[in-house]
Amino acid sequence: MKKKTPGGEDALVARLQRALRRGSRGVVAGIGDDCAAVEGPGRNLLLLKTDCVVEGRHFTPRDPAAAVGWKAACRAVSDVAACGGVPRHALVTCVVCAAQTKRWLDGVYRGLDKAGREFGFDVVGGELARTDGPAVISVAMTGAVSRREFIRRSGGRAGDVLYVTGTLGNSLRSGWHLHFRPRLEEARWLAGNFRLRAMMDLSDGLAGDLPRLARASRTGFVIDPLRLPRRRGATLEQALSDGEDFELLFAVSPREADRLESAWKKRWPKLRLTRIGQLTRTGSGKGLGQARGFDHFA
Amino acid sequence: MKKKTPGGEDALVARLQRALRRGSRGVVAGIGDDCAAVEGPGRNLLLLKTDCVVEGRHFTPRDPAAAVGWKAACRAVSDVAACGGVPRHALVTCVVCAAQTKRWLDGVYRGLDKAGREFGFDVVGGELARTDGPAVISVAMTGAVSRREFIRRSGGRAGDVLYVTGTLGNSLRSGWHLHFRPRLEEARWLAGNFRLRAMMDLSDGLAGDLPRLARASRTGFVIDPLRLPRRRGATLEQALSDGEDFELLFAVSPREADRLESAWKKRWPKLRLTRIGQLTRTGSGKGLGQARGFDHFA
Repeated sequence: MKKKTPGGEDALVARLQRALRRGSRGVVAGIGDDCAAVEGPGRNLLLLKTDCVVEGRHFTPRDPAAAVGWKAACRAVSDVAACGGVPRHALVTCVVCAAQTKRWLDGVYRGLDKAGREFGFDVVGGELARTDGPAVISVAMTGAVSRREFIRRSGGRAGDVLYVTGTLGNSLRSGWHLHFRPRLEEARWLAGNFRLRAMMDLSDGLAGDLPRLARASRTGFVIDPLRLPRRRGATLEQALSDGEDFELLFAVSPREADRLESAWKKRWPKLRLTRIGQLTRTGSGKGLGQARGFDHFA
Repeated sequence: MKKKTPGGEDALVARLQRALRRGSRGVVAGIGDDCAAVEGPGRNLLLLKTDCVVEGRHFTPRDPAAAVGWKAACRAVSDVAACGGVPRHALVTCVVCAAQTKRWLDGVYRGLDKAGREFGFDVVGGELARTDGPAVISVAMTGAVSRREFIRRSGGRAGDVLYVTGTLGNSLRSGWHLHFRPRLEEARWLAGNFRLRAMMDLSDGLAGDLPRLARASRTGFVIDPLRLPRRRGATLEQALSDGEDFELLFAVSPREADRLESAWKKRWPKLRLTRIGQLTRTGSGKGLGQARGFDHFA
């Protein structure tokens, strides 16, 4: 998971966003949020997310197949969680080469199934296809969230306090990227008890993702790099740029911040919550230094 | 798109089906139908489908990018249509290698967007990832269908008359596989005006797909191979086995058959509808000879 300079992926997504934007019936959030959200049953929104893992990029042939399946599912769960929702159904596309045995595929499905039991979604379909190259496991997930609790990246305001859960960096060597537990319960608790202004999950590293949240919210940001919660063995640079942390990054009104912090300590005594900085009026960001997030398309 | 002997893919799907089956809340149809169907808003079901095209398997680097995008979307539309539904939203995962330029991706999105305008769905999200191997475009689609009009593979009964729309075979050389028009309007009309017992779209060739419909319906079948509607230049073997026809295969009660045929001629004078045979009581199939459908995993 080598690092790249930024620009590529975001620029490409912006192009596609422009290319595809049009008057959409019932679309509440589209390209550019953690999930798309469309009008759902009753007072709920239907969340839609697709995410994939690619052999040689997100996993290796030496990784346990069940962990690959777990990771493929949990990446999507993490996005649904970051919108304040709960996952419901998943469709799984496995594009595999001849070297991937049935046993390997069984392992992948075991991991998917374990994640389904753990986080409450059902795998209701999918597809198998062959490739001559690296395997791809793509997970499409639906979720549900009440309108009131739906959280986007774009609601942040200047002055909002920024938090991250857990620790950042070194996700590859530590194995975290394969075995992480998406912050579903924590996000549900946050969405249900506080008026979060903006939230997203950290998949490309804080240095890649925080500017996205700020841009969506039309704010700048300032963080204190010395306050960043680092995983054991992670340098500051790695905490900013490694990616695949799958922690929550969120913004709350400064009026809610103290209440949130003390409630958090009681409810989640074992999981760190760190106030890393705030959103600002200016359009620029401070505190990331030269760090860049992970970008497939730089 | 070379032919293979059967067994592999179906056997694998059956394994996964067993592995993943469990008491599922609100799941009306799961793995094994053209789409999954879950409880949706009001009297509707939410249809969920994922489908992918793989470079070197479903398209080549020489094919126009817009046609690749069109095909990727229309494959999923065809499945939604075969359930009696209409497509609503799509998420698109593009896994591409360095050789695929931004221009190529723009072309793919242009094709997706054209299909969206044509068939009434919005592309609301997706993902971009890199691979060192063949590109994969995966489309996850939602659709809607009223409970009354939802059609599965499994409702066929012995004696039901079997029909296919259009012509079969030679989809690769003729370019049909890239430029086909999914039978959405036709399927909606069928679902709205007749009590279809079972329907599916033909993607792996009649010789691969008809046994699936019969198996799901716990029937046998007999077809008259000489009646099969062949595309120009297609041999009988090709009409049975080439795959990627994206025509509708459906079963209706013999009491409805005549009415359906005459109504069809008035409503769709330019599109062939062929009575190819019927479902039977015995569990075996007749009329396919030695032909096999396309199977990625044989």
